[in-house]
Amino acid sequence: MAQPMHGVYAPVLTPVRPDLSPDVDRWIAHCRWLLENGCDGLAPFGTTSEANSFSVDERIEMMEQLVAAGLPTSKMIVGVGCSAFPDTVRLTRHAVENGAGGVLMLPPFYYKGVSDEGIFRAVAESIERVGDDRLQVYLYHIPPMAVTGFSLRLIERLINAYPDTVVGIKDSSGDLNNLQATLDAFPGFGTFAGTEKFLLQTLRSGGAGTITAMANVIPAEIGNLYAKWQSHEADEIQGSLNAMREATAGMQPICALKEIVAAWLNDPEWRRVRPPLATLSTEKVEALLANPAVRARVAQSA
Amino acid sequence: MAQPMHGVYAPVLTPVRPDLSPDVDRWIAHCRWLLENGCDGLAPFGTTSEANSFSVDERIEMMEQLVAAGLPTSKMIVGVGCSAFPDTVRLTRHAVENGAGGVLMLPPFYYKGVSDEGIFRAVAESIERVGDDRLQVYLYHIPPMAVTGFSLRLIERLINAYPDTVVGIKDSSGDLNNLQATLDAFPGFGTFAGTEKFLLQTLRSGGAGTITAMANVIPAEIGNLYAKWQSHEADEIQGSLNAMREATAGMQPICALKEIVAAWLNDPEWRRVRPPLATLSTEKVEALLANPAVRARVAQSA
Repeated sequence: MAQPMHGVYAPVLTPVRPDLSPDVDRWIAHCRWLLENGCDGLAPFGTTSEANSFSVDERIEMMEQLVAAGLPTSKMIVGVGCSAFPDTVRLTRHAVENGAGGVLMLPPFYYKGVSDEGIFRAVAESIERVGDDRLQVYLYHIPPMAVTGFSLRLIERLINAYPDTVVGIKDSSGDLNNLQATLDAFPGFGTFAGTEKFLLQTLRSGGAGTITAMANVIPAEIGNLYAKWQSHEADEIQGSLNAMREATAGMQPICALKEIVAAWLNDPEWRRVRPPLATLSTEKVEALLANPAVRARVAQSA
Repeated sequence: MAQPMHGVYAPVLTPVRPDLSPDVDRWIAHCRWLLENGCDGLAPFGTTSEANSFSVDERIEMMEQLVAAGLPTSKMIVGVGCSAFPDTVRLTRHAVENGAGGVLMLPPFYYKGVSDEGIFRAVAESIERVGDDRLQVYLYHIPPMAVTGFSLRLIERLINAYPDTVVGIKDSSGDLNNLQATLDAFPGFGTFAGTEKFLLQTLRSGGAGTITAMANVIPAEIGNLYAKWQSHEADEIQGSLNAMREATAGMQPICALKEIVAAWLNDPEWRRVRPPLATLSTEKVEALLANPAVRARVAQSA
């Protein structure tokens, strides 16, 4: 089995212009800031990136902008999973050819009630059509969005079929039992918690780290836990991370995170989201920005 | 409000070659057969077409093959709804430019828990970017697959905003109460039942007809009910349609329908599906083909 990546990864938020096109300058600036402020790497084109609201052509163009900007693609786990496997193949091939350290692969997510056999075939077609030894696949298990997902038996089958390629998983089930079962079942596999809430438990069980939306706003704090997870402070640091997540409870998290970035940069352009998301109501934004954890974060950058 | 289309429409099955590419010849032959055997029109690129397992480029190419084959696109309601609105725009524009009678528009289906406002914006962006007076949109409400859907309030808002464009809906909720509420709320709107099971009730309530997977295998029978819905035989015909649906109960319906077509054409090429679907087990296929309704259908073509 190959050596998986590890650490704290941000599924990078994607700012958009008034015409809803990707705001590449703001996006690249945010990528740089994340890498300089506690993230070990980036996971562009994740759920938090609104990736599935962008066309394949837009995503390919954006990836080329990342490369042109000189950002280290070897430190990236690039989101590639689409509803149609030929799109997944195209994005995966492009990511690998541009030096991506790994790709994050959703199962096809339109058809529901599909079998493990069907999802296996979708992933297998994608891996075999790309046909590149450099490919490192992280499975993306996020039933709250994709509904379809990767069962433990399916993960095992994929690892056995592609031991040098299928090297990890992001578990965004939100279910600690499922995460723990994955960690226990596949030692040495690159298991990332989909939330920083479970980072300490993940590391103590031999996991790889976290790919978490919250890393967009508190990368240094999450990076600090990753650095000190074996220290006596670890539980206290883990506890201190919860305040930011609680501040966004009951709100569409992508919208809330964009509001926080907009507030700290004093840049309302950052508030914009692509449909089917819609910006938060004025009341929700006010409640969010009045929250002590958010106020502290915004003040820190002022 | 514009005059919606009406009648029996088949969301056309998409046969695929051994390399999983669309088998255009078999597909066009099936389209022709449907139009000659009871369908008023076609709904290519529907859920049953496995449309969301094909890339936008593949769908554009297939649409051009339909046009090149001389099939009447004015009798088609073309599936266009994607997860990313720029893809929906591209497919919609292409369908309109090729004379499609209408388009069937899913809401963006990756992000869950989105608001009516967000879905409204996605549909509005698509309509306004296409910006073509010829565009006739049928909303595609299918929460069992898309999870997101069109609430009655959202339908009303869309009709009010685009009265000459948003002309109908396919209700594939599987929920007769929701279908009846839609029929009652929007008289004159082109409401299609997503299953032939509710065709008679739809027509009696002023609806437009049905767009149903089963029309791929029993178009003449469903067309017969549509022709005779005001006759004294109507309830009996409606009852007689149920046997085919019952034959496929407990099976992935797209796979089951492809098996039936393969059996009646004696053409195993038709059995193939794209991932994430997987062909039915031998046991299921045997049970399906042993079912009296299916045997009668297969014998009819032998």
